[in-house]
Amino acid sequence: MADKPTKGLADVVAASTALSDIDGKAGRLFYRGYDIHDLAGRTTFEETAHLLQCGALPTRDQLAAYGAELVNGRSLGALVEANISEIAEKQAPMEALRTLVSLSGAENPDKDANSAEANHRKAAQLTAQQPILVARYHAARTGAEIPDPDPGLSIAANFLLQITGKVPDPRQVEIFDTCLVLHADHTMNASTFAARVCAATLSDMHSAIVAAIGTLKGPLHGGANEQVMRTLQSIAPDQVAGTVRDKLANGEKIMGFGHRVYKTEDPRATHLRRMSEELAQAAGDDTYYRMSKEMEEVVLAEKGLYPNVDFYAATVYHYLGIPTDLFTPVFSVSRMSGWTAHVIEQHADNRLIRPDSEYIGERDQKWKPIDER
Amino acid sequence: MADKPTKGLADVVAASTALSDIDGKAGRLFYRGYDIHDLAGRTTFEETAHLLQCGALPTRDQLAAYGAELVNGRSLGALVEANISEIAEKQAPMEALRTLVSLSGAENPDKDANSAEANHRKAAQLTAQQPILVARYHAARTGAEIPDPDPGLSIAANFLLQITGKVPDPRQVEIFDTCLVLHADHTMNASTFAARVCAATLSDMHSAIVAAIGTLKGPLHGGANEQVMRTLQSIAPDQVAGTVRDKLANGEKIMGFGHRVYKTEDPRATHLRRMSEELAQAAGDDTYYRMSKEMEEVVLAEKGLYPNVDFYAATVYHYLGIPTDLFTPVFSVSRMSGWTAHVIEQHADNRLIRPDSEYIGERDQKWKPIDER
Repeated sequence: MADKPTKGLADVVAASTALSDIDGKAGRLFYRGYDIHDLAGRTTFEETAHLLQCGALPTRDQLAAYGAELVNGRSLGALVEANISEIAEKQAPMEALRTLVSLSGAENPDKDANSAEANHRKAAQLTAQQPILVARYHAARTGAEIPDPDPGLSIAANFLLQITGKVPDPRQVEIFDTCLVLHADHTMNASTFAARVCAATLSDMHSAIVAAIGTLKGPLHGGANEQVMRTLQSIAPDQVAGTVRDKLANGEKIMGFGHRVYKTEDPRATHLRRMSEELAQAAGDDTYYRMSKEMEEVVLAEKGLYPNVDFYAATVYHYLGIPTDLFTPVFSVSRMSGWTAHVIEQHADNRLIRPDSEYIGERDQKWKPIDER
Repeated sequence: MADKPTKGLADVVAASTALSDIDGKAGRLFYRGYDIHDLAGRTTFEETAHLLQCGALPTRDQLAAYGAELVNGRSLGALVEANISEIAEKQAPMEALRTLVSLSGAENPDKDANSAEANHRKAAQLTAQQPILVARYHAARTGAEIPDPDPGLSIAANFLLQITGKVPDPRQVEIFDTCLVLHADHTMNASTFAARVCAATLSDMHSAIVAAIGTLKGPLHGGANEQVMRTLQSIAPDQVAGTVRDKLANGEKIMGFGHRVYKTEDPRATHLRRMSEELAQAAGDDTYYRMSKEMEEVVLAEKGLYPNVDFYAATVYHYLGIPTDLFTPVFSVSRMSGWTAHVIEQHADNRLIRPDSEYIGERDQKWKPIDER
């Protein structure tokens, strides 16, 4: 093979999708043709998941039916129930989710079916299950009492209830719900692409989602929001500019900035910045928000890079009382809605994803018996 | 994004690798510059895994050191030991391997490290562990007594011993060892590509391997060898030609034929055909071999398609006494050596794999409140 690869498949169009679209130059993001700015704050995560998985924003009747599916999907099954405590004790959050979702496939009644109907049922179930898995994982490792899921609460409200143990403030629920909407889908990001590569062998939904979870775990992808918080915590609040400049001068990567596709501000960051500021003011301590703003200015001035979705998500989650090592799991709670929609779409019009490679190693090696090597 | 995708990334060069190379027109396959015909039957699976993971065919001293690592890697760890029986009872083979490998990451002392040294240790350990997982899974679900791994036996010999419960015939061991060599690596196949997409976020070795296992599971990839055997078992031995022609006329896909990259015979199929014939004659019943030959002739005549690696692997595994639903797990036993080598290579010179997509959905959707939808 003589061709050179486009390293990292940058700008290579790898698939067609009707789920989301990015205009990187204008800084715009669309879910099924709806501008993210029209959805954020006006449409719930449940409606957004329905939009992605079922093709349209739901009517009241459709939302009631889908919501009932989501409430049913909250029960984890005997096998996960029996093993979640031990796994929580032995595996870090994203590792544990990888194992638990793999395990949860065992008891799915549709497990061997890739039909559209089976995939839709699995998509709703996985979307409902993921926040419960994260909350139950956290309770198991901390030994905290965890309230049962409340069928009257939304995914966002129920998650904050289960993670913090307190009935959440309604405005905090709205903000967290908007975070889930903003993270739901994002074209051919690495975890979604991994899910599609897996599904394109006609492997099943759970295999594809497990591949996506393992991929989101990486610090160049979903792991970045956690790194942002750890960076903020490692810097003295009055030495942000100097520390960031030193890091950049040392060639260190500052997580939460820059994006392969956006050439201007990520439209999700606009909402997250605003929500971070609001939560900081409500908390009566805006230190991390102010540090973030200063960091943003320095990185833009020095490197010309804009904050991405991970940057202000970090402080938003922090102010909502979510433990730092659950930031990437929270990303997975939202992205599950998009991943599953992509698997449905891949199976509906499938071709094996099997690229070529360029060979760069030794050629014409002569085999020798072991004693002559 | 206006560009059209190359569906399935066919002929798109997605990565550079020094591990393997295919000349699809000439029907040639190379591992690090060695022709597969020079390796098959002359080089053991352990030597091949060393070639892929460490860069060269080993000297005697290198093989002794690597072999010791492989023997140590056979112990599964307390967490897998405690859970393998229940998982074997509840999950099908590839599902169970996906869960068990995810679980096995928990106790790896290098789990958070992506350094070359840590990745090499993990690669050897995963290569050693995979055949033990398959054999222990099978013993757990059948309730059979399973001999302990014998540190004096090769991976191939030990696997046949543990699966069949009998000390294997030396020629059968040679043949199975050659099968493992033939399946070890194959450029940017779907499971390897999934592993690299995952690893390119700087996620860890176990996450990438779990993604690969889920991807291999699909019937358009590793799942095909099992489908070949089920097809042979579903056809009356004296009605092969007619049945295959009918299937083709009905638009059915005959598994085990054709390959995206090879335009002539897959060089692995040449070896597997020969070994299938030898085992059939030794078994004193060559029915499935003769049926395979006839099937091959019909598919070539009708569709111009050649057998791929999966086609004669099916009957070889069958004659070796391997249960049909373990054929894809056996593929994973071999391919683990290549997957892990690709993760080492990806981490050594990394860039996030994040392609673009073409948007084919609705545009300019106007948001409406739920009661107006």
